[in-house]
Amino acid sequence: MEDGIDRRHLLLGAGGAALMAGVAPARSAAQAPSRKLGYAMVGLGNYATNIIMPQFANCQHSQVTALVSGTPEKLRKFGAQYGVPDRSQYNYQNFDKIRDNPDVDIVYVVLPNSMHAEYTIRAAQAGKHVMCEKPMANSVAECEAMIAACKKAGKKLMIGYRCHFEAHNLYAIELVKQGRIGKPRTVQSEHGFSIQPGVWRLNKALAGGGSMMDIGIYSLNAMRYMTGEEPTSVNARWSTDRTDPRFSEVEDRILWTLTFPSGVIGNGVSSYSSGHNHIRITGDKGWIDIEPGTPYDGHRMKVGSYYNGDPVEPPPGPGVNQFVGQLDHLSQCIKENRDNRAAGEEGLRDIRIIMAMYQSAADNGRTIQL
Amino acid sequence: MEDGIDRRHLLLGAGGAALMAGVAPARSAAQAPSRKLGYAMVGLGNYATNIIMPQFANCQHSQVTALVSGTPEKLRKFGAQYGVPDRSQYNYQNFDKIRDNPDVDIVYVVLPNSMHAEYTIRAAQAGKHVMCEKPMANSVAECEAMIAACKKAGKKLMIGYRCHFEAHNLYAIELVKQGRIGKPRTVQSEHGFSIQPGVWRLNKALAGGGSMMDIGIYSLNAMRYMTGEEPTSVNARWSTDRTDPRFSEVEDRILWTLTFPSGVIGNGVSSYSSGHNHIRITGDKGWIDIEPGTPYDGHRMKVGSYYNGDPVEPPPGPGVNQFVGQLDHLSQCIKENRDNRAAGEEGLRDIRIIMAMYQSAADNGRTIQL
Repeated sequence: MEDGIDRRHLLLGAGGAALMAGVAPARSAAQAPSRKLGYAMVGLGNYATNIIMPQFANCQHSQVTALVSGTPEKLRKFGAQYGVPDRSQYNYQNFDKIRDNPDVDIVYVVLPNSMHAEYTIRAAQAGKHVMCEKPMANSVAECEAMIAACKKAGKKLMIGYRCHFEAHNLYAIELVKQGRIGKPRTVQSEHGFSIQPGVWRLNKALAGGGSMMDIGIYSLNAMRYMTGEEPTSVNARWSTDRTDPRFSEVEDRILWTLTFPSGVIGNGVSSYSSGHNHIRITGDKGWIDIEPGTPYDGHRMKVGSYYNGDPVEPPPGPGVNQFVGQLDHLSQCIKENRDNRAAGEEGLRDIRIIMAMYQSAADNGRTIQL
Repeated sequence: MEDGIDRRHLLLGAGGAALMAGVAPARSAAQAPSRKLGYAMVGLGNYATNIIMPQFANCQHSQVTALVSGTPEKLRKFGAQYGVPDRSQYNYQNFDKIRDNPDVDIVYVVLPNSMHAEYTIRAAQAGKHVMCEKPMANSVAECEAMIAACKKAGKKLMIGYRCHFEAHNLYAIELVKQGRIGKPRTVQSEHGFSIQPGVWRLNKALAGGGSMMDIGIYSLNAMRYMTGEEPTSVNARWSTDRTDPRFSEVEDRILWTLTFPSGVIGNGVSSYSSGHNHIRITGDKGWIDIEPGTPYDGHRMKVGSYYNGDPVEPPPGPGVNQFVGQLDHLSQCIKENRDNRAAGEEGLRDIRIIMAMYQSAADNGRTIQL
């Protein structure tokens, strides 16, 4: 597994800012103890309990050792299911006592966006490393405070960009670097779904925004990691039916154009009222398409030149799936004391751009320099 | 054939401004003579001779009866091939004598963009109906002059929007109108290819612009006919490598966002350095995707809800293929004295938007109200 990850890093080459962040050139096997690091899961909602937690069984370096929830029934149920003893079950009032729990190495924050900063900072102050779900937080200032708190505590901070560990996405990045599509020229990514009423993601105070703070960040992040470049400007337009009771507080659809230093130019879509899940990067010699591009599983990838493409199967990713790759990556980075590839700065970059998108859309599509 | 077209019109319903332009509610079979109308082909380049002219053999209402070229060898060769006698072969100096040729009903202008206005106006002044290739002309003023000249002469003007007669595109429009995707929410279309050096399309005086005046108009026109709406604003950004000798005069890539009155919002791509051929419209209940969307043949269409779509085969279009449908449509409209579905006003709409795109892109993406 570790060797697999290191080979991947070498294949990716030197250019991929987003995914290469903090890859150490060498490591000492002697420094890598075999103990699985312990994760405290903060927030026992659907994504944590149905998607992430079952994957610890497939991890080589990670296990669940603590649970944090405001609902005692959830603590009892998942405590029993994952063998987490009473002493490692917390609520939001006594959460800070986690500092005294030697079984916890990492706190994984899977809470509504507005709570990411608070629990990341409290976890760092409790002496724990942090995995925090994306979007990193609801403002640039919160992101900066999270990074500062982890730095001050000497603890690692990683943002839950699962696609950075997904085989199709990684292979597409690798093929771009190998020149398979020639010189990259455009990038497109669209993500969206029809959101159900009544969820916290439609509450602006909790979510920080609408589709862009949820599914749209996949389009944005993909445009960055597929090109391996940071955008220099953005224009965004939005459209929201305010008579739809779901959208009384947050935006529905937002579409944008990003320009990149190399001359690459790209369009993105984020939607809470239509279905999209697609990434394409085109170059002067061909294109790579992943559709669906960022599902939990079932990705399909094609490589083509003009009209039609051929299906391509990627080599295995760093974990048996993207969730395992993500969980074990942070554990390994902690064991080996190296930076992780989706650190706080990566999360901050997306939030800076999203805030610029909102500024542009609110100002009728005005170009914002990044 | 005529009945087939009329059924299509009924199926399309009342909303499709672009494709419904000028469909008469009834016709008199007694007014439709069986004679095939005669086309004079002006410009014997690749598109005219390899793509359009072979299709007259499949037409029920149209035939080639005259040829116009500056190259005597082409006149001899294609005159022999299509049985066009010497008296119906013209060059650009004696073109106006076509007024005296009773075998010519329609002049089909397949010249570089900068010559569209001149030959459309000369044809109208010679008392002929006109089919003119897209883009209609290099400026709004030229388009308006073309419309005025044909109106003054009492002759019909049609722009060569072949996709308005293509079965997949027509069926997608019909499915949208039938509510198959629910309420339309976004539209995306990308068209591009890697252009070869040295062609007239890279000469700004002849082409009027770069990829947008060539392949990009397919994306723009598709966004209009798929939604059935006229856009209210546009933002455009462009990217052109001026060190590439192909692009010393015209733009390479241009990307844009259009907003529509219903709240639909869409992204478009036009490129002379990467391959794209795609149309997608999404609604709150599903989406329709055509990729390739506008080739000469080999279209593929899918209808889906979120991740995956199912292949869909459309019913036959109005002609055995889009080229035949286009040629015979104008002939039928002339026979029946009704408006055609791709009249000069339709071409003008695209040119107005393209000029606004250029204005926006030149002004760093500023929103232009349409």
